[in-house]
Amino acid sequence: MRNIKLTIEYDGTNFHGWQKQPGLRTVQEEIEECLLAILKENITISGAGRTDAGVHAIGQVANFYTDKTIKCEELYMAINSIIPKDITILNVEEVDENFHARKSAKAKHYRYVINNFKIHSALNVNREYVFKYNLDLEIMKMAANDLIGKHDFYAFKSASSDIENTEREIYDISINRVGTRVIIDIMGNGFLHNMVRIIVGTLLDIGSGKLDVCTIKNMFETKDRTLGGQTVPGCGLYMVEVIYN
Amino acid sequence: MRNIKLTIEYDGTNFHGWQKQPGLRTVQEEIEECLLAILKENITISGAGRTDAGVHAIGQVANFYTDKTIKCEELYMAINSIIPKDITILNVEEVDENFHARKSAKAKHYRYVINNFKIHSALNVNREYVFKYNLDLEIMKMAANDLIGKHDFYAFKSASSDIENTEREIYDISINRVGTRVIIDIMGNGFLHNMVRIIVGTLLDIGSGKLDVCTIKNMFETKDRTLGGQTVPGCGLYMVEVIYN
Repeated sequence: MRNIKLTIEYDGTNFHGWQKQPGLRTVQEEIEECLLAILKENITISGAGRTDAGVHAIGQVANFYTDKTIKCEELYMAINSIIPKDITILNVEEVDENFHARKSAKAKHYRYVINNFKIHSALNVNREYVFKYNLDLEIMKMAANDLIGKHDFYAFKSASSDIENTEREIYDISINRVGTRVIIDIMGNGFLHNMVRIIVGTLLDIGSGKLDVCTIKNMFETKDRTLGGQTVPGCGLYMVEVIYN
Repeated sequence: MRNIKLTIEYDGTNFHGWQKQPGLRTVQEEIEECLLAILKENITISGAGRTDAGVHAIGQVANFYTDKTIKCEELYMAINSIIPKDITILNVEEVDENFHARKSAKAKHYRYVINNFKIHSALNVNREYVFKYNLDLEIMKMAANDLIGKHDFYAFKSASSDIENTEREIYDISINRVGTRVIIDIMGNGFLHNMVRIIVGTLLDIGSGKLDVCTIKNMFETKDRTLGGQTVPGCGLYMVEVIYN
């Protein structure tokens, strides 16, 4: 069997997230429908991460198996010619049979875009989160530093998630201002459900003075989600890259 | 009477352009409806330029007269809180009674964004025009140079326009590649209907070798629209700035 890796961009606005769900429009299902049309076989793709409704991707990765002999370049052109315009297949390549988009991933890079301004931007609706309070980026960077390394992120997951192992490792966080935007980039070995959005919501409350700079340390110690900030909306979140060996 | 100047951003995707038309959603009408709701009077706003369906604005300008005493900052916050999300009022200020958004304009700056790539980009649909053929930017710049200065742009207007004076002056054109994008910036004292889109379509055909580098000179000499390239779609066009004294 050939193992095919897809790299995928999408505008998450009009999707109920990545993962297939009956009766709802999802990225996974749209891609599988295109593969069925082109390859004439039912394909199940495995994604590197299950992005939520509204969350975008610049570099989502998925893989699937097939016996069909179509060339990768042909599949790339064929799928992009029929796929809905809010999905782009950026790359198609044949990979080692052991490659798995999620299990083989060494690191993931997410980005959160905040428009730190008093009003929305018409050309960026659904692409960023508008946060109107003044932000102290130096305080945010100090607090973000506490996230680096291996920690039990139990207090940084959605209540609906009952995953058992909540330890994750954050490799790097950077926070930068570009005009009125504040861009937060997070790299880690994996992320719990809503983890990036809770981290960002907590950093925003710290940066605006609503929460203490020690909040993140306290959340690690107490495992108490309620100490943190809100879960910021999906529209500001981008899955930027999945890193493999 | 107070004369109020508005600076406006909009995502043109879901509008039938700027100008009010019965039964169609337009930027002008949405803004006038908000002004009616806030000021409790029927207001007609004058825009600096009538952008077409799908065309975006980063810096459209309009003005209107009122006797109401509302402060500009209050109007700014009030209008942005009720306006549809695909419009942003960037600035509200009181100006001299003689100021007119269109008649007082000394120059306008338009930008056209081309994704010079073989496939669309999901996160930029409706924000750029995908042109897949290789472009020689040096040839395009040579041809663009012929546009600079005062010319009769009769061959660069839509057939439906029956305007009498078709002389316009182009102050500057720049063409730059940023990744797979090609960005064309045009400054001039005014533009005929579809003029920017016909200029860009002609430059693309010149840059891809379909049309000769002398095409623009020939269009000036013959006044023959059919010698030029297509009218490229509105989705790639941005009204960037209107310059006043």
